[in-house]
Amino acid sequence: MGLKQKDLLSMRELSAEEITLILDTAESMKEVSTRDIKKVPTLRGKTVINLFYEPSTRTRTSFEIAGKRLSADVVNIATEKSSVVKGETLRDTGKTLMAMNPDVVVIRHPAPGAPRILAETLSASIINAGDGAHEHPTQALLDLFTIRERKGRLEGLSGVIVGDILHSRVARSNIHGMRKMGMSVRLAGPATLLPRFIDQLGVEVFTDLEEAIKGVDVIMMLRIQLERQGRTFFPSLREYSRLFGLNLERLKRAREDILIMHPGPINRGVEIAPEVADGPYSLILDQVSNGVAVRMALLYLLMGGAS
Amino acid sequence: MGLKQKDLLSMRELSAEEITLILDTAESMKEVSTRDIKKVPTLRGKTVINLFYEPSTRTRTSFEIAGKRLSADVVNIATEKSSVVKGETLRDTGKTLMAMNPDVVVIRHPAPGAPRILAETLSASIINAGDGAHEHPTQALLDLFTIRERKGRLEGLSGVIVGDILHSRVARSNIHGMRKMGMSVRLAGPATLLPRFIDQLGVEVFTDLEEAIKGVDVIMMLRIQLERQGRTFFPSLREYSRLFGLNLERLKRAREDILIMHPGPINRGVEIAPEVADGPYSLILDQVSNGVAVRMALLYLLMGGAS
Amino acid sequence: MGLKQKDLLSMRELSAEEITLILDTAESMKEVSTRDIKKVPTLRGKTVINLFYEPSTRTRTSFEIAGKRLSADVVNIATEKSSVVKGETLRDTGKTLMAMNPDVVVIRHPAPGAPRILAETLSASIINAGDGAHEHPTQALLDLFTIRERKGRLEGLSGVIVGDILHSRVARSNIHGMRKMGMSVRLAGPATLLPRFIDQLGVEVFTDLEEAIKGVDVIMMLRIQLERQGRTFFPSLREYSRLFGLNLERLKRAREDILIMHPGPINRGVEIAPEVADGPYSLILDQVSNGVAVRMALLYLLMGGAS
Repeated sequence: MGLKQKDLLSMRELSAEEITLILDTAESMKEVSTRDIKKVPTLRGKTVINLFYEPSTRTRTSFEIAGKRLSADVVNIATEKSSVVKGETLRDTGKTLMAMNPDVVVIRHPAPGAPRILAETLSASIINAGDGAHEHPTQALLDLFTIRERKGRLEGLSGVIVGDILHSRVARSNIHGMRKMGMSVRLAGPATLLPRFIDQLGVEVFTDLEEAIKGVDVIMMLRIQLERQGRTFFPSLREYSRLFGLNLERLKRAREDILIMHPGPINRGVEIAPEVADGPYSLILDQVSNGVAVRMALLYLLMGGAS
Repeated sequence: MGLKQKDLLSMRELSAEEITLILDTAESMKEVSTRDIKKVPTLRGKTVINLFYEPSTRTRTSFEIAGKRLSADVVNIATEKSSVVKGETLRDTGKTLMAMNPDVVVIRHPAPGAPRILAETLSASIINAGDGAHEHPTQALLDLFTIRERKGRLEGLSGVIVGDILHSRVARSNIHGMRKMGMSVRLAGPATLLPRFIDQLGVEVFTDLEEAIKGVDVIMMLRIQLERQGRTFFPSLREYSRLFGLNLERLKRAREDILIMHPGPINRGVEIAPEVADGPYSLILDQVSNGVAVRMALLYLLMGGAS
Repeated sequence: MGLKQKDLLSMRELSAEEITLILDTAESMKEVSTRDIKKVPTLRGKTVINLFYEPSTRTRTSFEIAGKRLSADVVNIATEKSSVVKGETLRDTGKTLMAMNPDVVVIRHPAPGAPRILAETLSASIINAGDGAHEHPTQALLDLFTIRERKGRLEGLSGVIVGDILHSRVARSNIHGMRKMGMSVRLAGPATLLPRFIDQLGVEVFTDLEEAIKGVDVIMMLRIQLERQGRTFFPSLREYSRLFGLNLERLKRAREDILIMHPGPINRGVEIAPEVADGPYSLILDQVSNGVAVRMALLYLLMGGAS
C-alpha cells in the first residue's frame, strides 16, 4: 500500500490508515540514521526543493538531511534571495519551479493555504512545512511517531496541548492527528489564546494548567511567541509563565509516567522550566530525531514508494 | 567537436556553429530531466561554484539543478554572507575561489564586465549569469533553443523584443543571438528606453507596439523594472502598460502561430496580460525547462565534453 | 595512528605529534583536488553541518568543498535564517542539531568558547572555524602545512606575525602552532594592538616592523579590521599602513627567500602592498588551496580515519 494523495497539506486530510502507514515507514527509515553509512540510494536522481518563505533551522535542516540520506538532490530556496523580492506571485513561482521538474516541493509560508495553492498548480508533490497559523502536518506526524514509539500505541491515550493554541499551526495539526488516532485531547491556555468554536474539534478546554494535566499521558507545550507579550493576549511573560509555565512543582500533579513534548525552539524558563525540558520524561530531542525519519518516510511515500 | 572557448561571457563572442553545438547538446540533455532517475554521472567529481552578487531564484536554481543532474558538486555563494562584505576585490575573490580548484564558476554581478575580469584571472571556466545591463547569454541560448524547438529552425524567422531595451541584458544577448542565427530582429519600446546608435546592431526600431508585432514569428516581452516608474523613462506603470503591455486585443494584430516569450519573473497586468502569459502561444514555462537543459549542455561542453 | 580527540577546538590542545599527523594526512588529501575526478568515497553517508554565526566565504566554502570531495553530505546553516533569530541558546541549538545525527559540526561564532560549549554538549565532532578573538585552528594548520610544504620542515624556522595581534584568532592559533612545532615566533604591531602578558607565550615582541622582519623565514600579515580605525587602537589607515604595511621597499630588509602569508581577505594597499601580495614570495593562494586539503584531513581523521 502507498499514499493515495499527491501532497501532504494537512493532518485534517489524512486517514488513520494513512497516518499509520507513514509512522510504520518512518520506523524503518529511522534505522538508516543510526548506520555507519547513513545513506540509501532510494531517491537517487530525484529533486527536492525546500522553498522557505520564513526563517527556519530545524525544519529546513530536517528535510534537507532527510532528502540527502535518501540520495535525493536537495535545492534550498530562501525568500531573502529569491524572486519573491521581485514581486512574482506564489503561483508563478510555483510554475517556474515546476518547469525544472522537481519531484517534491517542501514549502513554508506565512500565509495559510499557500501550500494548497502550490498543490493545485503543480504536478510535483507538495509538503506543507508550516503555513501561517493553519497547519504543520510533519510536526504532528513526528509527534505521533514519538508518542507511539514510547507507548507502543496511540489509541486510548490522552494528551493536553498547552499555550497559545489560537496562533499555533502545531496545535491545529496535532489536534487533528491525535483525534484521528483515537487519542483524547485537552487544550489549556489563557482564554485569550484559545480559539472560539473549539468544541467542534472534539476537545476539552481548560484555563487551569494543573487541572488540565491531571491524568493525561502526554503534555505538549507550545512555544510562546515573545512578541505577543504586552498585547491583548497576555500581560507579561512573567505572568504567563506563572500561570502556564511547566515546572517540576506542577509536574507533581501529572502521572508518574508522563511524557513531555515541545516542538522547539524552547524558551527556557518561560513556557518550560529547564529541569523539565532536560528531565527524564522529556521527549524533545526524540522529536527532532524522529523528524528526520518521518520526513524520509514522507519523501519516500510521496514519490511512489510503498510500505 | 567541442567548444573552443574556456568561458561563456557573451553571445557576441559565440559563432553560429558554436550556438548550434550548444543547442544540439541541450537536446540530449533535456531528455535526462524527463527520466525517472534524473541524473547522469557525467560530471562526477567536478566542482561548480554559483557566485551570485544579486538575488536570483530561477537562474541560480537552474544552474544548481543542472549541475546536480550531471552529478557535479555545486557550491552556492551569495553576497549577503560573503567576504564581499569585507571589501575584497572581485579579482581577489576570484583567485581565492580558484585556489579551491573549481571547474566552473557561474557569476551574476551588477557590474558589466565582471565575468570577464574573472575569466581573465582564473583558469576555471566562467559562465556569465547576467552582468548589469550588459549580457545574459544563457538566457539567450535557452530562448533560441525554445524557438528552434517549436519552429524546427531559426534561420529566416523574425522576432520582436519589447520593453526596456536600454537596461536589458536579456535584450542585448538575444539581439546578438538571433542575428547570428539568421533571424531578423525588431525592437519596440518607449523612445526613452531604446539605446542610441541601435541601427548598428542590424535591427529595426518601433515605438508603436501594434506595428512592431505585425508579421513576426516571436514576441519577446521584457520585464519592466518597477523602480524605474516616475523617473525620466516613463511616467507610470498604467501609461506603460497602455502603450506597451501585451494583451489579447493587441495580439489580434499578430500572426496566428505567434510565439510569446518572457524571461520572467513576469509582472502580470503590467507588461503582459495574464491571459497572454497563460495562453496557448506562451512559451514562458518552456523557457524555464529548457534553461536547465541548456545549462547542463554548457557545463558539459565547457568541461571538455563534445557533442 | 588516529586522532585521540573528538574535537578540534584550539591549537593549544594539539600535540606536535597530532599536528604532524594532520599535516601528513593533508598531503595525501591534497592530491585528490588535482585529479580529473576530484572525489573519493571515504565519507559517503556521513553528515557535516556548517553552522556559521558570522558571514564567511572562504572558510565555509573550503569546508563545504572539503566535505563534498570526500562524498559527505554537507548542510549549511547561516544565522540569518536560523532559529538563532528566535533566541534559542547555543546549547539547545546544538542538541537539536545533534538529534539529527551529524558526524561533524563546523562552527564559527563571535563568542570565544562557543565551540567548546558545543563540544561538551554533543557527541558529534566539533571543529572550531573561528570563535571571536580566541582561536581559528584550521587556519593555523593550513598555515603550518604551507610553510612545511615550501621549507620541508618547521623545526628551527622563525616567523613574525604582523598587525592587530590583540584581536586576532589567527595570530593566537598560529603562535601556539608554530611554538609547538619548534618555530621561534615574533610579533609586530602598534603597542595598542599587542596583548599584555605576551611574554608568557614564549615570543619576542617588536613595535618596529623593519627590525621585526630581519632574518625570519616567514612573514605572516594579519588583516586590519577597517572598523577599528580612529578608535583608540590606531589613528588612521594611512598611519597604520605607513608604519606596518608590507611593501617592496621594506621587504629589502628581509631574507632573500622570505615567505609572505596572509589569511585573507587582504586589504590591498593597507596592510600589504599589491606588489607584495601578488609577488613571487607570496603564499596567499597556496594557503587557500591547502585549506581544502587540511580540512579534508581533519574531517577524515575526526571521523575515525587513521593516517
